[in-house]
Amino acid sequence: MAAVRAQVASRLAAVSAFASVSPGSRTPFQRAALHRSAPRPGARVALVLSGCGVFDGTEIHEASAILVHLSRGGAEVQIFAPDVPQMHVIDHTKGQPSEGESRNVLTESARIARGKITDLAELSAADHDAAIFPGGFGAAKNLLCCIAPVLAAKVLRGVEGTVGHEQEEGGKWPYAGTAEAIKALGAKHFVKGVAEAHVDQKNKVVTTPAFMCETALHHIHDGIGAMVRKVLELSGK
Amino acid sequence: MAAVRAQVASRLAAVSAFASVSPGSRTPFQRAALHRSAPRPGARVALVLSGCGVFDGTEIHEASAILVHLSRGGAEVQIFAPDVPQMHVIDHTKGQPSEGESRNVLTESARIARGKITDLAELSAADHDAAIFPGGFGAAKNLLCCIAPVLAAKVLRGVEGTVGHEQEEGGKWPYAGTAEAIKALGAKHFVKGVAEAHVDQKNKVVTTPAFMCETALHHIHDGIGAMVRKVLELSGK
Repeated sequence: MAAVRAQVASRLAAVSAFASVSPGSRTPFQRAALHRSAPRPGARVALVLSGCGVFDGTEIHEASAILVHLSRGGAEVQIFAPDVPQMHVIDHTKGQPSEGESRNVLTESARIARGKITDLAELSAADHDAAIFPGGFGAAKNLLCCIAPVLAAKVLRGVEGTVGHEQEEGGKWPYAGTAEAIKALGAKHFVKGVAEAHVDQKNKVVTTPAFMCETALHHIHDGIGAMVRKVLELSGK
Repeated sequence: MAAVRAQVASRLAAVSAFASVSPGSRTPFQRAALHRSAPRPGARVALVLSGCGVFDGTEIHEASAILVHLSRGGAEVQIFAPDVPQMHVIDHTKGQPSEGESRNVLTESARIARGKITDLAELSAADHDAAIFPGGFGAAKNLLCCIAPVLAAKVLRGVEGTVGHEQEEGGKWPYAGTAEAIKALGAKHFVKGVAEAHVDQKNKVVTTPAFMCETALHHIHDGIGAMVRKVLELSGK
């Protein structure tokens, strides 16, 4: 997990600080040597899943939106998940644990990946320009502490990020308290709307509120689009 | 299931033939009486899921794209699934059945619905202007025969629809043989690209190839967008 820990993260996306010096990446000079009309090589992006379902795994619509926008941006995507048991299985009709049931994070994540998935243990930072972590409680429950949004603030001292607004505003931002928790750990919180993404240029971390906001799904889809475009810009591809 | 059977379907979407006479729907006259700048009432759409995962349930990215486009189109969506055991559980890393495991279609579908889901037995055609059935093998395996794409052709004699192209074209259309199966049942097949939808005006059935085509995800997302827009147009809302 060391490689993953090094390029940690935020609520939704992290561009690894060492992406720009990745040995396999092509420089602008090399690219210029290609025929002008040739398509540019796509950014190589690792998508790290934590199961399949908002309450015990990856939030499905965040993952799907990330994949749509990466596809539109011409990225080469490889999907990863850890080959470990889930912390528990939540019955999503009840929001309660399903007693006596156990599932594997990699196996369940494969439902989002349509079978094309790799054990997270095989992820090498040198092979990717960026890593993206969708939300969902599985990110905290199954992917170790390092990518939980609050603890990301602990790993990257002074990191900038957004989880949306800082007041509940009548239920529109039900998790608004998260911003205070992040700030208490020394991170700088930026108030953003659901269709926006915040870029920490120094740490190369991009965040968007996504489902932290109670709003229509297409606004969340568009906010994730803004985040993915910033990630691809930062990757320089 | 009779109500559902009556408004059957196609690979992806069906607008029920009786939608326009739904007792609860507002007529253009009623709508004109509202203030001009008031938002139009949204189409009431039932989304029918069959589990969570392409090989034994609903294809996740098709369902997510449908929800994004319905949200963008201002529709009121209610999500349904049958409260029955899945035919089997497929390990999506292997494409093989997971022995000794059983799951419930409604419970698994709730992962896509983020918990907001209703038993399909409670679906009443009068409450909805349209019903949409995402693809995935679960549609055939868990939702009875009536909505499998091939059998839809059998239920609606002479129905028009598309499952994409009729030749494999080097692997781009791996399920091209489906078109022949549909035609053998008396349906009219229309060759369409992945970004297109076909409208059967008489039967009020809209179809798009979606994952019948091996292509980039954003093309599939856009094709589903074309389908959803046609469904909302047909609903007259």
